[in-house]
Amino acid sequence: MTYAELNRLPERISIADYLCHRLRQLNVRTIFGLPGEFNMPLLDRIYATDGMRWAGNANELNSAYACDAYSRMKGLGCLVTTFGVGELSVLTGVAGSYAEHVGILHIIGMPPTSAQTKQLLLHHTLGNGDYNVFYRIGSDIACHAQILSDSEFCFQHVDNCVEMAWNEQKPVYLGIPVNRVHMMVNSSCLNRPLNLDTINFKSDTNAHDNVILSEEAEYKYDELIGMILKKIYASERPVIVVDAGVIRHQITKEAEDFIKLTKFPSFVTPMGKGSVNENVPNFDGVFTGSLSNPNVKELVDNSDCVLVLGCLLAEFSTSTFHFYYRTKNKNKILVFSKSVKIKNLTFPDMKVEIIMEKLLQKYDPSRTKRNFSHIDTINVPRQTLSNDHLLKQEWVWHEFSNWFKPGDVIVTEVGSSAFGIIQIKFPPRTQSISQPMWGSSGYSIGACLGVLFAIEEFKEEAGVTSNLSLPNGETINLKNLQDRRVILFVGDGAFQIAMQEISTMIRWDLTPYIFLLNNEGYSVDRFMNNKSNLSKFDVQPWKYLNIFKIFGALNYETRKIVTLGDLREMIADENFNVDDKIRLVEIILPSTDVPPALLEKWIRERTQSKVIKESPRFFDTPESSEFSEMEELTPRGSKHNSIISL
Amino acid sequence: MTYAELNRLPERISIADYLCHRLRQLNVRTIFGLPGEFNMPLLDRIYATDGMRWAGNANELNSAYACDAYSRMKGLGCLVTTFGVGELSVLTGVAGSYAEHVGILHIIGMPPTSAQTKQLLLHHTLGNGDYNVFYRIGSDIACHAQILSDSEFCFQHVDNCVEMAWNEQKPVYLGIPVNRVHMMVNSSCLNRPLNLDTINFKSDTNAHDNVILSEEAEYKYDELIGMILKKIYASERPVIVVDAGVIRHQITKEAEDFIKLTKFPSFVTPMGKGSVNENVPNFDGVFTGSLSNPNVKELVDNSDCVLVLGCLLAEFSTSTFHFYYRTKNKNKILVFSKSVKIKNLTFPDMKVEIIMEKLLQKYDPSRTKRNFSHIDTINVPRQTLSNDHLLKQEWVWHEFSNWFKPGDVIVTEVGSSAFGIIQIKFPPRTQSISQPMWGSSGYSIGACLGVLFAIEEFKEEAGVTSNLSLPNGETINLKNLQDRRVILFVGDGAFQIAMQEISTMIRWDLTPYIFLLNNEGYSVDRFMNNKSNLSKFDVQPWKYLNIFKIFGALNYETRKIVTLGDLREMIADENFNVDDKIRLVEIILPSTDVPPALLEKWIRERTQSKVIKESPRFFDTPESSEFSEMEELTPRGSKHNSIISL
Repeated sequence: MTYAELNRLPERISIADYLCHRLRQLNVRTIFGLPGEFNMPLLDRIYATDGMRWAGNANELNSAYACDAYSRMKGLGCLVTTFGVGELSVLTGVAGSYAEHVGILHIIGMPPTSAQTKQLLLHHTLGNGDYNVFYRIGSDIACHAQILSDSEFCFQHVDNCVEMAWNEQKPVYLGIPVNRVHMMVNSSCLNRPLNLDTINFKSDTNAHDNVILSEEAEYKYDELIGMILKKIYASERPVIVVDAGVIRHQITKEAEDFIKLTKFPSFVTPMGKGSVNENVPNFDGVFTGSLSNPNVKELVDNSDCVLVLGCLLAEFSTSTFHFYYRTKNKNKILVFSKSVKIKNLTFPDMKVEIIMEKLLQKYDPSRTKRNFSHIDTINVPRQTLSNDHLLKQEWVWHEFSNWFKPGDVIVTEVGSSAFGIIQIKFPPRTQSISQPMWGSSGYSIGACLGVLFAIEEFKEEAGVTSNLSLPNGETINLKNLQDRRVILFVGDGAFQIAMQEISTMIRWDLTPYIFLLNNEGYSVDRFMNNKSNLSKFDVQPWKYLNIFKIFGALNYETRKIVTLGDLREMIADENFNVDDKIRLVEIILPSTDVPPALLEKWIRERTQSKVIKESPRFFDTPESSEFSEMEELTPRGSKHNSIISL
Repeated sequence: MTYAELNRLPERISIADYLCHRLRQLNVRTIFGLPGEFNMPLLDRIYATDGMRWAGNANELNSAYACDAYSRMKGLGCLVTTFGVGELSVLTGVAGSYAEHVGILHIIGMPPTSAQTKQLLLHHTLGNGDYNVFYRIGSDIACHAQILSDSEFCFQHVDNCVEMAWNEQKPVYLGIPVNRVHMMVNSSCLNRPLNLDTINFKSDTNAHDNVILSEEAEYKYDELIGMILKKIYASERPVIVVDAGVIRHQITKEAEDFIKLTKFPSFVTPMGKGSVNENVPNFDGVFTGSLSNPNVKELVDNSDCVLVLGCLLAEFSTSTFHFYYRTKNKNKILVFSKSVKIKNLTFPDMKVEIIMEKLLQKYDPSRTKRNFSHIDTINVPRQTLSNDHLLKQEWVWHEFSNWFKPGDVIVTEVGSSAFGIIQIKFPPRTQSISQPMWGSSGYSIGACLGVLFAIEEFKEEAGVTSNLSLPNGETINLKNLQDRRVILFVGDGAFQIAMQEISTMIRWDLTPYIFLLNNEGYSVDRFMNNKSNLSKFDVQPWKYLNIFKIFGALNYETRKIVTLGDLREMIADENFNVDDKIRLVEIILPSTDVPPALLEKWIRERTQSKVIKESPRFFDTPESSEFSEMEELTPRGSKHNSIISL
């Protein structure tokens, strides 16, 4: 039976219904956004489509973050906003998806075309009759932008937009004027499988076999694979770095298999963290450029063959605060999503999915020299401390590493959390959601909501499907799946920016762990600028633990953690380990404390490097001697531990 | 003494200091925004400049709204964001300032120029080396965009940007790369008065006399004034409509004087509300196009000379939900900020300030026919109700009209509040802050913060200045000034979008009245779409009154108002009338209730009009008969009245 027959669709359906079905075929079942005058008829169709739901976010920017994280879990997210006020409000989130290569379909409910033609001064416009300004802006932060036409073939616009968002893993802008929501198309058009680079893991009716390459393409790929393997076989000290492209293009399994097969020292970037099993013996930690653990840095810098899989950065040799690839090594092989770069030559139109498939087929382990040294790069506290000791970042992350379980999804905010999380080893199948490239403060709360929706859907599907595949291609069993907890680490500054989205979690009875690192403001910024006026990094002190009550939560738990003992007690608590309710844990930290990954590397960086001198942090960062003072600081506040559980 | 001498400035100062002093000269003393890596050195200079302060907002979009409202009070606002993540987050707010003609200087801390030149992949970029994308976007929603050059003459960029924002009353985009913050310029450049169209009301050292026109310009203006007066004198039924341009260009006093002088029936637009004294005998209410009171509509539609002062709309004959000027009258005189349109001809380069000055000089009352009928257009409840009656919008606004005092500043959210407020008569010197054109949900909370900062500064100045001038040109005495209360009306949907900015009010010990209209979500949207699935208009029910505690407030009061009696008791409470603490009052309303201004006019519109048929609301709006059912609905929740005061 065809899709239309299976779903008993009438011969003619509205384009809005068509769109909903296309999304459902890709297993995109939650749509994010806020209602607005020009998107309402569209929202009605979401409600009318079986198996689809409207998240009903509290705040528009948060809805974009939620959509982004949902896509990271499921391969695609869909965001609906209204013309002008709505679409501009989500722009920071959409730009984050662009920067971090996340596929989202951004649908904008637009004024009726007649109003646009006549340039009437509708509200939500700039008042100058320019209806194109928002489209121009949207196009600038999208891999494709389209306003739905009024032709019989408008369904092709929808198909094209959905395919682009999925295949390019970038935002797509689709404007739908309100008067075109109800245009009719043939439901049979839904029977055509979408043209997807990656095989969707639950497209029952849409599944199509692996792409069959033309003979010419086969030659092209084989020739390139030959070049790559030749370099690898000739290498004395090869290393593999896995970047986020392997997550976006759902080839994490292939990447992991290749790591196991080669036994090369292997690393992930901060964006790639969680992509591969960190318990593979030759997994050697996180490569963060100049901020890397010295052993990691040495291995990568001295390698004569650095193979970067799913590379997201246009230039490997780049300098940022998060990524500093200062490798002098010219023996680089960068496998981007749609091209490969070897040394200085770029080979276009080479898809990472096919490259990985062929690498796995053709790699011959016997032809590689096997003298690889491995390292332990995980930071452990310099000393063991007693329970009554006040907390510091250094110990927090170490303790948490014992609490994480296989299958956990860990969402981290820009700042302390993102730096902290990269220094610990994940259990198998742990997924990490963060935004190291775009780095928008407040991202993590909306992102956590998006992950929660995705996990809930995975669990629901598990109820009807015995054999469930994850977006990373792995097949896991039901029990594992039901154990997948969602864990958020967020600082107080970011919490204040975006906390209303916790209300949406409560509205949907979702049960994350929210760990609020309370260090009285923007600590990483404060750290980087400790000569500047500190009050600008402060935030108003809130009574965070009362927030569930305000938002109307009934089934929740809150805790305040001040000492190492508090933390250990919580982690040892069996009941606490089951994610049967929403939880907020406030962790009190010194205001000038930062994770050791940042602290130690930063000192090294300060003394060694000659990077961008103009940057303010290079003027203003504290001298090494000042850090020792900072370390002596103790957290404010008295010891206090409260548990409220209704 | 020159400005530089008076302020004992060294001969050379940094461009950042220069900028701060230019803002201070214009009495812009609070800067809005959030800290970010690329704006920190600039923020340091704000702290270093005497009399300047950094607001330290909780959320970026809210900071833009605060800046917008601050500018509406003081003539200019300044917003500082960081590259990429920051500047995109405020875009909806900046676009609102553009749409509603509000002058703001938006300063963006940018990465060092060397990084831009080399296209290094810094974080907060799209990762494609395109550093211009944010500038392009910013330029699209600004009357002027500039990136600070590295020349000795960069101070001219600053002057130009400040002058443009002030004179054009639109956003200006000024990018400052971090490495240029400390460029040195001569402090003596500050001695040159800025070139401002409107005389700044407190530019002690910068004041300059009224613009002296060239002979040619005099002829030009005289000729045009002659044409305008000829039309007016010939008119049988002239009316005046005052739009927001008179507020932005600080000629409210002139507009009011002209209304008094002519005795013509006079109206304000929703955006112009609060611009003129509504107790002048010939003030006849608010003109909201097709949504107007029928008497208002008749007077304007049948007028043979509609003089619109400070017109903001590019076309008078336009159709929007908020403004519907369906006048068949061709005898229109539209005085825009920089041009005049008579019938179909436009006269460019005519400044509204000069037009108003000359109209007042040359208008001869004896030459006008004086047979004007006046009307009472204020809605009053259809019946008097007892105290135990549950509330409805109709009665709420009427009761509040008895509570407002001269000098109050009333901030209203899009939705019920904006519709409600236009139906009541303001006391003299009442200012109204709302966003009827752009209509971004969540605007009012940030806006309220901006107003509070401005009022606080007015009060501080009153302590040192005996004779204080308001931005509308009026001079008022100290006592009046100190009585100016800031009153916010906001719905629960909007409250959830933006409520963290209340924390900033608490941080600064500001004392607004916050009236939260709790009608379980987006009521105006629900009203306009009552055939669609209602759940999308719902929001999670919160325990709103506890929010002050979370935000760490110490001196506050909360109330819950369910019946008319509760409301009357509150309004009669002498203590409540003094704004000595921050207050949150939750007003429980039926979820399908809307203000009568909306309800009644909408029914009329439905039955009479043939406007844009494609708009969804014309398909989906309820029939008139359905309204009577809606009116019967009673509010949920039991009667409950609590007062907490610490």
